[in-house]
Amino acid sequence: MIKKYEIFKNITLFRFGDPFKTGAVVVDVDQINFKEVKDIYLFDKNVGLDKVVFNKTLSAGDSIYGLGENLGSLNKRGKIYRCYSSDDFLHTPEKEALYGSHPFFIIDGDETVGVFIDSPSEIKIDAGFKDTNLLSIEVSSTDIDLYIFRSKNKIDIIGSFLSLVGTPYIPPKWAFGYQQCRWSYPNRETVESIGNQFRSLDIPCDVIYLDIDYMKDYKVFTVDENKFPDFEDFIAKMLEKGFKIAPIIDPGVKIEDGYEVYEEGKSKGYFCKKENGLDFVGTVWPGATCYPDFANSKVREWWGGLYEEMVKSGICAFWNDMNEPAIFFTPDGLKNFYSLVDKIKEKKDPGFDFFSIKDAVNGLSNKREDYQSFFHNLDDGKVICHDKIHNLYGFFMALATSDGLKKLLGNKRYLLLSRSSYIGAHRFTSIWMGDNQSWWEHIIVNIRMLQSLNMCGFFYTGADIGGFGCNSSAELVIRWSQLGIFSPLFRNHSALGTRNQEPWAFDSATTDIIRDIIKFRYALIPYIYSEYLKSIINSRCLILPVSFVFDDPILKNIEDQFMFGESIMAAPIYTPNSGGRYVTLPDVKWLCWKVKNFDDRDVSIYNPGSYFINCELDETLTFVKENSIVVLTRPQNYVGEKKITELLAVAFVTDRASYMYYDDDGETYDFQKGKFINLNIFIEKSDGDYEVYFNDEESAEYKNDIRTIKFEIYDENGRVFTKIISR
Amino acid sequence: MIKKYEIFKNITLFRFGDPFKTGAVVVDVDQINFKEVKDIYLFDKNVGLDKVVFNKTLSAGDSIYGLGENLGSLNKRGKIYRCYSSDDFLHTPEKEALYGSHPFFIIDGDETVGVFIDSPSEIKIDAGFKDTNLLSIEVSSTDIDLYIFRSKNKIDIIGSFLSLVGTPYIPPKWAFGYQQCRWSYPNRETVESIGNQFRSLDIPCDVIYLDIDYMKDYKVFTVDENKFPDFEDFIAKMLEKGFKIAPIIDPGVKIEDGYEVYEEGKSKGYFCKKENGLDFVGTVWPGATCYPDFANSKVREWWGGLYEEMVKSGICAFWNDMNEPAIFFTPDGLKNFYSLVDKIKEKKDPGFDFFSIKDAVNGLSNKREDYQSFFHNLDDGKVICHDKIHNLYGFFMALATSDGLKKLLGNKRYLLLSRSSYIGAHRFTSIWMGDNQSWWEHIIVNIRMLQSLNMCGFFYTGADIGGFGCNSSAELVIRWSQLGIFSPLFRNHSALGTRNQEPWAFDSATTDIIRDIIKFRYALIPYIYSEYLKSIINSRCLILPVSFVFDDPILKNIEDQFMFGESIMAAPIYTPNSGGRYVTLPDVKWLCWKVKNFDDRDVSIYNPGSYFINCELDETLTFVKENSIVVLTRPQNYVGEKKITELLAVAFVTDRASYMYYDDDGETYDFQKGKFINLNIFIEKSDGDYEVYFNDEESAEYKNDIRTIKFEIYDENGRVFTKIISR
Repeated sequence: MIKKYEIFKNITLFRFGDPFKTGAVVVDVDQINFKEVKDIYLFDKNVGLDKVVFNKTLSAGDSIYGLGENLGSLNKRGKIYRCYSSDDFLHTPEKEALYGSHPFFIIDGDETVGVFIDSPSEIKIDAGFKDTNLLSIEVSSTDIDLYIFRSKNKIDIIGSFLSLVGTPYIPPKWAFGYQQCRWSYPNRETVESIGNQFRSLDIPCDVIYLDIDYMKDYKVFTVDENKFPDFEDFIAKMLEKGFKIAPIIDPGVKIEDGYEVYEEGKSKGYFCKKENGLDFVGTVWPGATCYPDFANSKVREWWGGLYEEMVKSGICAFWNDMNEPAIFFTPDGLKNFYSLVDKIKEKKDPGFDFFSIKDAVNGLSNKREDYQSFFHNLDDGKVICHDKIHNLYGFFMALATSDGLKKLLGNKRYLLLSRSSYIGAHRFTSIWMGDNQSWWEHIIVNIRMLQSLNMCGFFYTGADIGGFGCNSSAELVIRWSQLGIFSPLFRNHSALGTRNQEPWAFDSATTDIIRDIIKFRYALIPYIYSEYLKSIINSRCLILPVSFVFDDPILKNIEDQFMFGESIMAAPIYTPNSGGRYVTLPDVKWLCWKVKNFDDRDVSIYNPGSYFINCELDETLTFVKENSIVVLTRPQNYVGEKKITELLAVAFVTDRASYMYYDDDGETYDFQKGKFINLNIFIEKSDGDYEVYFNDEESAEYKNDIRTIKFEIYDENGRVFTKIISR
Repeated sequence: MIKKYEIFKNITLFRFGDPFKTGAVVVDVDQINFKEVKDIYLFDKNVGLDKVVFNKTLSAGDSIYGLGENLGSLNKRGKIYRCYSSDDFLHTPEKEALYGSHPFFIIDGDETVGVFIDSPSEIKIDAGFKDTNLLSIEVSSTDIDLYIFRSKNKIDIIGSFLSLVGTPYIPPKWAFGYQQCRWSYPNRETVESIGNQFRSLDIPCDVIYLDIDYMKDYKVFTVDENKFPDFEDFIAKMLEKGFKIAPIIDPGVKIEDGYEVYEEGKSKGYFCKKENGLDFVGTVWPGATCYPDFANSKVREWWGGLYEEMVKSGICAFWNDMNEPAIFFTPDGLKNFYSLVDKIKEKKDPGFDFFSIKDAVNGLSNKREDYQSFFHNLDDGKVICHDKIHNLYGFFMALATSDGLKKLLGNKRYLLLSRSSYIGAHRFTSIWMGDNQSWWEHIIVNIRMLQSLNMCGFFYTGADIGGFGCNSSAELVIRWSQLGIFSPLFRNHSALGTRNQEPWAFDSATTDIIRDIIKFRYALIPYIYSEYLKSIINSRCLILPVSFVFDDPILKNIEDQFMFGESIMAAPIYTPNSGGRYVTLPDVKWLCWKVKNFDDRDVSIYNPGSYFINCELDETLTFVKENSIVVLTRPQNYVGEKKITELLAVAFVTDRASYMYYDDDGETYDFQKGKFINLNIFIEKSDGDYEVYFNDEESAEYKNDIRTIKFEIYDENGRVFTKIISR
């Protein structure tokens, strides 16, 4: 028996059984009238004892988009994906699952339709791999909410989806500044010196992260006072210099007598339990640990409160890592491994058995069997096996964190990154893309994933710029940083044992180039912040595939360019030794902008078409759409350092263009009470010159500091016209 | 003290110390007069106790090409490479060494120069990774032959290099047919059924490989009679149907009393020894094995003779695998691992020690320490540590094989693939590119490596089409097979446990497409064989980067197209869901050939420039150069099935074109005695039509069967003119 609900227009819910309430959806669907149906739209279904398989024949031209954090091409067709949140440190192309589970996708062909399978355990999606013409979805549950979205185009389907799952999270404005991380800056001295380097080298930066080594023995919510003496003073001093400090918080709580978090969690029964009622134990960074039962609201409340001390010291940025949750091994797993070794040890010529040892040790981590061996105590008193709601662990941890931070910070916004996530987590956290590598191939992965994650509501996201694992080269970090300009989260991060990759880690010529890149990012923040907020207001992704925005069928092949807001198309270079790249410019004329720095920006005009465009290493290749405007400001050391009173409006206008510039205080939620501005900027061609004006919808609640707009307007011949308006 | 030799014009040898005679070079350089010098051209040098470091400052525009079997871009700048032959089964981008060691490269910039470092142990080449502007080469020996080549361009430098190291190996003509492999076709029945499938599905095929499971307990030079009863009859029957069977031969000899190869090798002292004089033991497929001491000519002779029985049964194709040599583990290594586990076992909370176990087991294979622990007995009575000549092990094994086969086969040519190789091995063996993966990313790796290996003399080479590891999709195998048309070795191969990827392993539409692809390969064999032989005669690579052939600076960026002989430019599609690709057409007009099959070939004409060109899944994108000719024939089931009496000459002529068609018996070395033909084909535009003729330089020694040439000539407007000449 299937229940069918019609939710809003264009959204239909097919309910199988009695699904777990994941929290992905913000609409109270149970209040809507339903009817019972036998069949569902779109899919053939096959209901088994413990799973449901949904099948759909694909036409040759059908594309599939979405699935959030996943590898493979932007068009997901031709690969198998698996929603089962996984701590995988080697993102080779065949991998089926990463840290987040995002079972929302769009089938785009003769008909265009969105699908969201709200089910928090394993979902296997074969998007035409085994059988080229078959989309086959195996959901490992018979309690499922299946949502189907119908709209006239892909952008509207995403809009409908967001009306169901809620609008994306809004970080503070400084979260659009540059962010620096490394596993790990080992002590206060190092972090301070990193901060000083940024300032003395004149490289803007807003956030510095503390990876696991700031803790005492990797115990969450502790600080190693030997490495970070006078933590509160440290945070305050860094804040004074314009740096927010973002400590890592893992879920695993070290089993240690006298360690407050452990003692409290244990005594209150807040950890996940094995079938026998004992706390489940797994090993992660601190050694043997317990796992908080985040599925329970009391545990979430407790956990959220644990941030208090850190928040009091002035911290409002955190990252939640390891929350798939990662398990290096369990005591039982290790014991079995030892027995295997003992058995093989007795053989004279072990031969192939060597591979059993290898497979066994490599298979000890993040085992399905371990996830099936512990349980959650839900609010309603029911007990549920972790495996059944595995994909929600990171979601619930981030929810605990964000609820806690909201309470502790009041009207002040927070920056939160979570490694694991589920649909809906975009409402209260950002995610980053996990442990990528310093591979050129991972820049294009980053480019594609920005687009796919935006489709699933994660507008503010990004990968580790420069790559986390392996050693990076100067050229790689430069090219990747150029992409970073157009990555909402612009964070450079690298792993223990790898080459340093801070902006100054290479030669001085490289430092100069990266400084200019980061400064240009800061110059663009008025545009980026304005576009980000408007994207949320309009439920339209900040980052969109060009094929979603323009109609030319050739664009289905273009996965390495993307629209970044309404005016800019990014076309990052992602191959080594490149003196340029191919670009397809759709539909209209484009201004090709090769940006060396704020003051040195080469401009040329292109007609629609495909081109190989030369671009030197110190140039960021950017395109501005015909009849559109980009607003910039002089870069600062950090967001909010100085009041911005002047904007530079760079425009490419062959007829007329307008731009609505949104701004608010960037720090609080007062915008919800009307404290924001919408500044409308207009440019119109007339008699070989341009008329410019702006129309200030200043809110009574929020003071607009902008007094002057300089215009730099290009016509179709690349001739520039400059204007200034002040008030 | 450095000795300087001038060899031919344009080649200078700088000799450090007393280098090991690797056999890479065919010129007797010791007969040439030398003078002592202090400095060497090109490099700053730093001679240490046990190594020499060569440094050269790179200009911003300098590119580096060559290095044969390696990952990274075609322009090798910006990465670290390591010549130390390695059995690496996961070709992720950061890897520095694969199976072969090919320390020849070209520095191309203000000055263009070739470098060959003839030294058979570890060489680290940092091509501007650590320091963007520094090429730094660390040779782990003070006995080195360093050759420097100066010529006016890159193609001439390769020509000079080949004049030093000898001309490439010439396989039988049927080696240009399609080849099918899998780890493993388990028995005679399966192989016969595979053969029957090819014939009944009308898919051409010439060679089927036997992977390790044909052997009795993985003992080399044995056949498991249970799986392959009446082996001689099996080979004969397959030959009758036009299939050559190519068994694998590994170097490791199983330690087993009564096993003839082991007993003989042991009694004669033919295995590599440890310092204590005992045979060195490592584990590979058969379990504990000994490693033949191929550095010794007596051992090579012995080994070459072991092929006798197989050759007598009609086999003339072999592949030498695992000859880096691969070592899964040594008894001592395993013992140390067990002790480590025992130590960790005692800890209550092992925590991070888990990673020590993991690293230890994963590090047991192919360890440098193991390579340093055994020795070779050289012909001159000297003993040398394996590590000092590590990169020659595969070279010597393939030499042993090829010398043996030459003796056993007499005037009949053989097909030989070796996994490991060193410069010079191209004279007597082919190599394949080892254990790649069914990743789209590995198609472009294949494209680049074809070009880099050609530069090092390995003209006849190829990767496992469809990918060895991981599961492949229909689309991947189709697109990769389209590249296979232009891969001299066109072999589909896949690993144990992965999805089958024979041409019929997917759906019937896929089978139809792959059939047409393979048939088109066969149609091209007259061109391919002719171009291959001419490439050897002219010491000019069969496969060349477009930037080596044409001058436009944009071409430095084009690594995904290549010249395949003089008339064809290949532009394979290597991304999923693609409806086409970008192509840069240099210098002249090009005929764009979208080949569905022999009879259905869409043609359009392009001016020089960069384009996005649409191309359906069933179309192979190919370009024919202005004023050039391609010769084809109707496809056959296998090479030599029927006499070819008619050629189709497809040409794109705006003025005049000529083509020299080379052919010989394809089976013997009689071409060396003049038994070959050069058929000169001419097309000339005149008065809106074309004049065609051919000039038959028929050798008195070799009968030319061609009686008719059909011409299909396109003009600059894509209009076709057909002509026939018979005699």
